[in-house]
Amino acid sequence: MADPIVFNGGVRGNWKVTRQQSVEGSGLADVAFVDRGTAADAAAAWTLSGVTSNLRYTNAAEKKILDATPSVLAKPGATRGALIPITKSAAWWGMAQDERRAVLEDRSQHIAIGSDYLSVVSRQLVHCRDQEGAQFDFLTWFEFAPENEARFDDLLAKLRATPEWGYIEREVELRLEKVS
Amino acid sequence: MADPIVFNGGVRGNWKVTRQQSVEGSGLADVAFVDRGTAADAAAAWTLSGVTSNLRYTNAAEKKILDATPSVLAKPGATRGALIPITKSAAWWGMAQDERRAVLEDRSQHIAIGSDYLSVVSRQLVHCRDQEGAQFDFLTWFEFAPENEARFDDLLAKLRATPEWGYIEREVELRLEKVS
Repeated sequence: MADPIVFNGGVRGNWKVTRQQSVEGSGLADVAFVDRGTAADAAAAWTLSGVTSNLRYTNAAEKKILDATPSVLAKPGATRGALIPITKSAAWWGMAQDERRAVLEDRSQHIAIGSDYLSVVSRQLVHCRDQEGAQFDFLTWFEFAPENEARFDDLLAKLRATPEWGYIEREVELRLEKVS
Repeated sequence: MADPIVFNGGVRGNWKVTRQQSVEGSGLADVAFVDRGTAADAAAAWTLSGVTSNLRYTNAAEKKILDATPSVLAKPGATRGALIPITKSAAWWGMAQDERRAVLEDRSQHIAIGSDYLSVVSRQLVHCRDQEGAQFDFLTWFEFAPENEARFDDLLAKLRATPEWGYIEREVELRLEKVS
């Protein structure tokens, strides 16, 4: 139903790649730029796309906290970004809903950890798992001011140390700088 | 990630349409046959497609019951079927996970009602909400023996009487007979 959000990796784009690494599993071809838009670019080295969707684990009390600090993209000072495509394992997807929620929040505090950074890190969760032929489950997207990059590093380190991250079988990290 | 499941409505196919009705919202063009396959047919009047996915609401205890009676498609005697594409409202998708679960199961017993029919109605939930340009959220698919059609009618009537169905804003029903 939603409009696609498309990331073209290649020689041009509205975000310059400052660092690219494979965190887990196979990487993506190295690119100099990522173009965030709404259509695939045939000249791109790779194209990833997906849609925003409904909440999957967040409960009503947690949603109130999130709604109180809406994640706004394209803030004037937020000239740093990150695109982190991830794929979770068959073991993760084979669990029942309450079992996945138990790992994600009861054991990993994913939502609680993220909430501590709402004011300094804007984020968007792009879903692609249910798209035919998609190579990742999610394309996670972040924007922040240069002075908050260290806080973003903290956020990533905390999440990667959780039990939930044991279910991540592929993760690629691209750090970005907005093209002015 | 998953392979697409594709339904082409038109003048040919492996299932003959015996009845077609719009239950809620706009219908689909009337067709004589539905072809269930893996690729779009350019000659079809309409094409709907999606993928199977992970459980969204089912908890571990409920999953045990479902796993004990796996839903097997293409059983020899199951020559009757139904394709019921549905779309839920923005009010549904705007709720937090626990709020949707409360409507779906605590108030509507969707999983419990369905469990009573596992042995006589094979079913498959095809997801398309997170696909770009999809016109339905789900394509629900059912197969049963002719002598169990009345039980399938019961199942539909029970589900349509639940609070959950108040959130269905589009529903089309096609009753089918397998082409031998």
